[in-house]
Amino acid sequence: MTSTKAIVAHDTLQNGGWKMEEVSLRPLAEGELLVEMVATGVCHTDALIGGLPGGAAPIAFYPRILGHEGSGYVKEVGPNVTVAQAGDPVLCSFAFCENCEICKAGHYSNCNAFNELNFGSWPAFHLASKSGEPEVGGLFFGQSSFANFSIVKQCSVVNAKGIVDNKKDLQLFAPLGCGIQTGSGTVINVSGAGPKDAICIMGLGGVGLSAIMGAKIQNCRMIIGIDKVPSRLALAKELGATHVIDGSKLDEGKTLGDVVKELADGVGPTITIDTTGAPVLMDAGMKFTRNRGKYIQVGSPPFDYTLNSVSGFEFMVAGKQWIGAIEGGAHPPEYVPKMIRWYREGRFPIDRLMKLMPAEEFEKALHEMHDGTTIKPILTWS
Amino acid sequence: MTSTKAIVAHDTLQNGGWKMEEVSLRPLAEGELLVEMVATGVCHTDALIGGLPGGAAPIAFYPRILGHEGSGYVKEVGPNVTVAQAGDPVLCSFAFCENCEICKAGHYSNCNAFNELNFGSWPAFHLASKSGEPEVGGLFFGQSSFANFSIVKQCSVVNAKGIVDNKKDLQLFAPLGCGIQTGSGTVINVSGAGPKDAICIMGLGGVGLSAIMGAKIQNCRMIIGIDKVPSRLALAKELGATHVIDGSKLDEGKTLGDVVKELADGVGPTITIDTTGAPVLMDAGMKFTRNRGKYIQVGSPPFDYTLNSVSGFEFMVAGKQWIGAIEGGAHPPEYVPKMIRWYREGRFPIDRLMKLMPAEEFEKALHEMHDGTTIKPILTWS
Repeated sequence: MTSTKAIVAHDTLQNGGWKMEEVSLRPLAEGELLVEMVATGVCHTDALIGGLPGGAAPIAFYPRILGHEGSGYVKEVGPNVTVAQAGDPVLCSFAFCENCEICKAGHYSNCNAFNELNFGSWPAFHLASKSGEPEVGGLFFGQSSFANFSIVKQCSVVNAKGIVDNKKDLQLFAPLGCGIQTGSGTVINVSGAGPKDAICIMGLGGVGLSAIMGAKIQNCRMIIGIDKVPSRLALAKELGATHVIDGSKLDEGKTLGDVVKELADGVGPTITIDTTGAPVLMDAGMKFTRNRGKYIQVGSPPFDYTLNSVSGFEFMVAGKQWIGAIEGGAHPPEYVPKMIRWYREGRFPIDRLMKLMPAEEFEKALHEMHDGTTIKPILTWS
Repeated sequence: MTSTKAIVAHDTLQNGGWKMEEVSLRPLAEGELLVEMVATGVCHTDALIGGLPGGAAPIAFYPRILGHEGSGYVKEVGPNVTVAQAGDPVLCSFAFCENCEICKAGHYSNCNAFNELNFGSWPAFHLASKSGEPEVGGLFFGQSSFANFSIVKQCSVVNAKGIVDNKKDLQLFAPLGCGIQTGSGTVINVSGAGPKDAICIMGLGGVGLSAIMGAKIQNCRMIIGIDKVPSRLALAKELGATHVIDGSKLDEGKTLGDVVKELADGVGPTITIDTTGAPVLMDAGMKFTRNRGKYIQVGSPPFDYTLNSVSGFEFMVAGKQWIGAIEGGAHPPEYVPKMIRWYREGRFPIDRLMKLMPAEEFEKALHEMHDGTTIKPILTWS
């Protein structure tokens, strides 16, 4: 039985329930790989799920190991694994069933079993003090990569052999399979953005800044970034934003919608992407998107948030579209290598977003992500 | 000053406020044509707008002349009219400004001024008893075609010269520019439906049955029609529906969503189009549309209806799309001739929907449309 250090969430982050400790892993089952992680990106979804009081939702339970932007090397493969062999470098992404009608149509990120496979209870680890059946949840996003060694489902694996040949790059690329793919993929795969579009990105964290880079790759004529952290606004401009708005410093008497519309031809953006999940921004964005425009939801809103600010009649006459997107509509085995190519061509400078930190400093990493001083912390395991 | 008979709405339809009477027309202004109508289709939107108590909304006022599926011959043209000349046969459609950013992008049906231009107060007629400034609202949808002679804006005119050469066809084609275009255009121009799609149409009136015909033209593999009038369900099957559901006769213990999902691969349609505006159907349709599917709103919901049954988080994870559509996303001068061609090729048998009735029988026409015995009544003026 392999033993590993891991960040175990025994309770919510707010209650100080996340602890680095030693756990052991159950044996591999069919279609699973043992991966030695070299790095794991930290994402707001970890904090969101690991911030829910146990039992508050079907996906809220403890103890569990979170982490879903892992990269590392395969140490061992279980039965019927074809995606990789021991020794291969891999980048981890989300899990999907491959068999439902949605997966069969190629829409893996909206798999019918997405919630169950990515957020569900799949015990895979033992606390040092326990024996018998595993009692610590694993396979979060098919990977639970807040562990030095973890069990990963093969659907979550992008084999990087021949694409990534050193540990440093493998660490840098850890978040490609979630945050970076979500932001850039929403623009590139979901929105249909092109040179005629005026696009507005709300929230300039890792997802939002990746969306800015995606909009630049698509040559959007206008790229508006909204945030309230000055360093993020400055970085957005360097990465391709043509305009930025500090939502905390609007001119007196003007709403955010007024300011955005003024910039965007007087009628609002053709595409708005919300990466925040903040109801006040969502409600504003749905209104300021121009007629026939697309409003795309990427940030997780509160679970009880409904679209009750949207008038069915008005949205219909305006010909607006409300589009849900997750994981950038990407098929990671195709999309992750694309992002790596863009990075190497200098068109996708993701290194500007990243800060590598030892895994032991996970609390500092979360703190810096929340206050905006670090866009995308990456925990390193060795 | 031209005098004409017209259906004048002095008050709501329910209050018996619509009366056939003699009115006179003000002189033509720039960009307007005088059209002698030969026919006008009756649409639920006439009943909806002409059923609002005066003052209940900015678009609710009396007296006015409704009607927005007119066809006829040009009698006279005002200054700067280029679309047609006296004597030309014309089919009338909606109004748009041509100058806003939305029109400039070719999305005329979502013109920023759509509400004002199509539903607003544009006095154009005089009651026989009055003189001075016109006091009866005209230019409803740029045409107010519930009048034998009416003033029509040139943006609302599709010139049918060389396309339609007899009065009988001109009468039959009267509703192409609204109801028929709305149903078929939503499938063909807005939804992107094709042979891989399982499409569900809720409500099988003129719009819904036109959508069925559009889905057949697009070769959708599954076309589900929902209504509760047996004759409409039978007609839907003749026009191309592969399955029909009588929403009033569901098996005990089954919801509409259960039945639709069972038919559609167990996961629901890839495209759902609601032509009813009935909240109970809308809420069901948004739920039963499959992940990554498109829910398209075409029927007018109550003005106070909001999307409060939609969970932002669930719709996001499901990757669903809510799309507003109006007038089938069509540019009538291009799309109306297309529909006429399909009709003549036998692929678009709109005559199966129509019933011609003398304009004097407008109350009977409305009654038959509401109870479902007539799908699309067309009032004839001569």
